[in-house]
Amino acid sequence: MGKIGEYTYYIDANALDFNRRPTLSAITDLVLAAAGDDADRNGFGVRDLAPQNWTWVLSRFCMELERYPEAYDTLRVHTWVSEIGRMMTTRNFLVLNEKGERLGAAISNWAMLDMSSRRAVDLSANLNYTWAVVDQPSPIEMPRRLATPAAFASEMTHRVVYSDLDFNRHTNAIRYLELMVDMLPLEYHEGPHPRRLDVNFLHESRYGDLLTVGMCCDPLQFEVRGSEGQVICRASMDWKAKK
Amino acid sequence: MGKIGEYTYYIDANALDFNRRPTLSAITDLVLAAAGDDADRNGFGVRDLAPQNWTWVLSRFCMELERYPEAYDTLRVHTWVSEIGRMMTTRNFLVLNEKGERLGAAISNWAMLDMSSRRAVDLSANLNYTWAVVDQPSPIEMPRRLATPAAFASEMTHRVVYSDLDFNRHTNAIRYLELMVDMLPLEYHEGPHPRRLDVNFLHESRYGDLLTVGMCCDPLQFEVRGSEGQVICRASMDWKAKK
Repeated sequence: MGKIGEYTYYIDANALDFNRRPTLSAITDLVLAAAGDDADRNGFGVRDLAPQNWTWVLSRFCMELERYPEAYDTLRVHTWVSEIGRMMTTRNFLVLNEKGERLGAAISNWAMLDMSSRRAVDLSANLNYTWAVVDQPSPIEMPRRLATPAAFASEMTHRVVYSDLDFNRHTNAIRYLELMVDMLPLEYHEGPHPRRLDVNFLHESRYGDLLTVGMCCDPLQFEVRGSEGQVICRASMDWKAKK
Repeated sequence: MGKIGEYTYYIDANALDFNRRPTLSAITDLVLAAAGDDADRNGFGVRDLAPQNWTWVLSRFCMELERYPEAYDTLRVHTWVSEIGRMMTTRNFLVLNEKGERLGAAISNWAMLDMSSRRAVDLSANLNYTWAVVDQPSPIEMPRRLATPAAFASEMTHRVVYSDLDFNRHTNAIRYLELMVDMLPLEYHEGPHPRRLDVNFLHESRYGDLLTVGMCCDPLQFEVRGSEGQVICRASMDWKAKK
């Protein structure tokens, strides 16, 4: 039987935007850091998988923030794995402030990727860590399956560069979030904070790929497509601009 | 009399590039984090300056790495202020590994900016922290004053977006470094590590500005210009591509 891990992160000056509010991508990054740290501690982190040339890739993510973290807050992130399927595992998060008060929660679904074949690894056949599962349900509604928006209000393109890549040799999940959020009018960053975020990661993108990012408002939705039109990822945000 | 501060940082998975080597920008970021942490500890950090609407801005930076940090290394960064002038202060860094062996060193020059007027604050008239100066010379050759390269081998443009901005409401220093490094052929990231980096920051860039980044090789030099042709920053790198 596994247990709930607690990891502490500090929201430093680097996490802040022009308003000195932590960016959505920085908060997502801290929450995902807890996933990495907890997997490391339990012996199934990316370093443990490296000898077989396997790695973890994020497939879906959602986060709800009832209270938004502030500059220089210390966050306590509780995390646990609640389920392991054949292709996917579910890891949950509670985001607390230093006093232990709940600010929000998140859920992530992960697949294991064989770096050589770029194909998914069958978790049930290849990974024996069912002992790590904690019998504690997910704290919010599961990550939603997102559809292509009917129409885009605006689009931009981006060529994948060196700094976009991570140790998995593909564009980093946080980078997609930045590309999306960068399309928003500044009134979003000056208004009420985002309440819920859902992201689906469907395909990888690699060095030199030309991405098209489409946005539509009300509700706020994004889609990133590759040069052959394949959907790379989609996101939906419950977030309103300053009136 | 001040003292040399020591701060410890961990090179996590986020700091790694597609080769699982820490990026030059991630290492620079960790070194500069020590500047922020030491200023905070001594009572003249950006949060201490906020009531007067003043802030620190980086003017020049250089770093030499005799040995390059590796994935998952713990870095011990020693830092101290060696000089305070009217317009500029000099902060030094030694970069050590966990065992205390020297990997490299860095020097930074900082000016203080009045956020309202966007003008420099006279340090001698406005800041009484000469007590913080440590009588220990800078560990490497001072940051070089860089000139415009004779010609550019390649150029790219970039529109300043939300994620490029920091709490000083201008493009973050690390972001310029990323824009530069992203122009390099991948052979640089696959070859010997960078040995020395010099950066001069001359003007700010703000949200929506169109930047032009020029690169020339042998020696490797970069220049970022704003839409009116003004030089925003220049860099020079002692770095060779894989043969």
